Amino acid sequence: MTGTAAPELDVVEWFNTEEKLTLAELRGRVVVLHAFQMLCPGCVASGLPQAKKIAAVFPRNEVVVIGLHSVFEHHEAMTPVSLAAFIHEYRLGFPIGVDRPGGDGPLPHTMAAYGMRGTPSLVLIDRAGIIRHHAFGAEDDLKVGVEIALLMAEGRADD
Amino acid sequence: MTGTAAPELDVVEWFNTEEKLTLAELRGRVVVLHAFQMLCPGCVASGLPQAKKIAAVFPRNEVVVIGLHSVFEHHEAMTPVSLAAFIHEYRLGFPIGVDRPGGDGPLPHTMAAYGMRGTPSLVLIDRAGIIRHHAFGAEDDLKVGVEIALLMAEGRADD
Amino acid sequence: MTGTAAPELDVVEWFNTEEKLTLAELRGRVVVLHAFQMLCPGCVASGLPQAKKIAAVFPRNEVVVIGLHSVFEHHEAMTPVSLAAFIHEYRLGFPIGVDRPGGDGPLPHTMAAYGMRGTPSLVLIDRAGIIRHHAFGAEDDLKVGVEIALLMAEGRADD
Amino acid sequence: MTGTAAPELDVVEWFNTEEKLTLAELRGRVVVLHAFQMLCPGCVASGLPQAKKIAAVFPRNEVVVIGLHSVFEHHEAMTPVSLAAFIHEYRLGFPIGVDRPGGDGPLPHTMAAYGMRGTPSLVLIDRAGIIRHHAFGAEDDLKVGVEIALLMAEGRADD
Repeated sequence: MTGTAAPELDVVEWFNTEEKLTLAELRGRVVVLHAFQMLCPGCVASGLPQAKKIAAVFPRNEVVVIGLHSVFEHHEAMTPVSLAAFIHEYRLGFPIGVDRPGGDGPLPHTMAAYGMRGTPSLVLIDRAGIIRHHAFGAEDDLKVGVEIALLMAEGRADD
Repeated sequence: MTGTAAPELDVVEWFNTEEKLTLAELRGRVVVLHAFQMLCPGCVASGLPQAKKIAAVFPRNEVVVIGLHSVFEHHEAMTPVSLAAFIHEYRLGFPIGVDRPGGDGPLPHTMAAYGMRGTPSLVLIDRAGIIRHHAFGAEDDLKVGVEIALLMAEGRADD
Repeated sequence: MTGTAAPELDVVEWFNTEEKLTLAELRGRVVVLHAFQMLCPGCVASGLPQAKKIAAVFPRNEVVVIGLHSVFEHHEAMTPVSLAAFIHEYRLGFPIGVDRPGGDGPLPHTMAAYGMRGTPSLVLIDRAGIIRHHAFGAEDDLKVGVEIALLMAEGRADD
Repeated sequence: MTGTAAPELDVVEWFNTEEKLTLAELRGRVVVLHAFQMLCPGCVASGLPQAKKIAAVFPRNEVVVIGLHSVFEHHEAMTPVSLAAFIHEYRLGFPIGVDRPGGDGPLPHTMAAYGMRGTPSLVLIDRAGIIRHHAFGAEDDLKVGVEIALLMAEGRADD
């Protein structure tokens, strides 16, 4: 889906933010969308630590990190109650939205709209709302940092 | 409590074993008791991988690894339903017992009986049922392997 | 020295490059200067792997990685002959220069000119030849990637 | 060679010990022989840290760790002068012997006598001087700790 407009988030509950976030309102900033499941080993070992680092390195008014809890298996084991404890124990400070459960199948709505193949998935959305990077699995910190920085710089150059 | 008889396990539900385990019936073998919580970062990062490795290295008829899910916080987030999914996702194959929830306070029964200070906690019980090692927090793989091997060898020497 | 013009390199021997490199001729590109010693544990464990990664991620016509072998101790143990074997064994592919040994004291010339406090040291020089980052010790991959990318983007914006 | 008598060490120079070590005089103790090259990345990353850990965990009067600098390539780059600086920088405290250079080929004498395939190589010799473990490449800390502890315990059982 790289190169196309990022579908709006469909979230039923937010953590770490008082107001609901929408991509529409974040237009003008780079959005780092990190889809995870709290019981996914790869998310815990690499994806979420990377998301924390990104949130710490970039200024919030330029780059916004959003966690998306996209549960597509063991639904009864990863309820918002369990997620709240997980967020507390792992000291996650960036906004996290619970992806709306699917009606027919196991896939939640936002995950399906983005065509994600599993968790962790990382989607980078540029200041204009276009998907510029869309990947499944662990990714190298240095490489990801470079990609986000280049997207951040694009906007500046347009000023 | 090192040097004293190991209190019996008080478990309400077992995973990865068809029969309930008791220290009484395991007398004659070394028991490696690994107390954890599924949402405890230190358990996920170091304690449980170490327990898996111990279970893989030692012969089961000499050394038995038992996981003890000792929940003392976020009780509603770490129910047996969530634990079952966690065990599946993290590919834990050794027997795991759910420590009996405490009546009055947050501490479950076995955890309280052993005077554990938190999770992960590692308790090594010799072939005679005596506690020989009792520690809280991450421990070095090599050191732990040595301690268990020496306990295992003790029994052989007595033959 | 951040904000000042980068002193020219003073190198007695080059590896991995047929022509001698000078900052003067690299003007217009971002230069990543990584000072190390082959027997410095921190360089081997984190600095050099990071330099390799930087060289792999960025296009050579925009960002040039230069290793600088700045020996300030155990001089007789880290001669160019030993360095050649080290470069081969550690599969270092980017250009590496041997910092000119100091006449009076233990510090080699380029290291002294940059006021480096030890190894590893990382210096980032922008397209205009100005030092923009100057640090001693291990640095986070993601953070370093971001800094270099922003320097790289600066140039583009000016076009 | 597992199960056969360990060939005597053939060493031209010792570090970290005032007296020359021989397997003959160490009979009665377990000997951990760690063959390495100072410019071998696998030795630096895993073999030598493991040897340090073994030396720290086991009592010296039961288990003796010996490093063997078995240079079979880049001979001019890994002279005893360079090795001395390496030992200092990597804070290696156990006895290290320089394997006697081979006359005809690149392999040093002790390495050839043991039929080692490269570095790092780990050889475990029991209290009776018999080779009990002989492996090339990185090995798991827990597993190695267990093997050494069982060899150490053997002696005790015989008392």
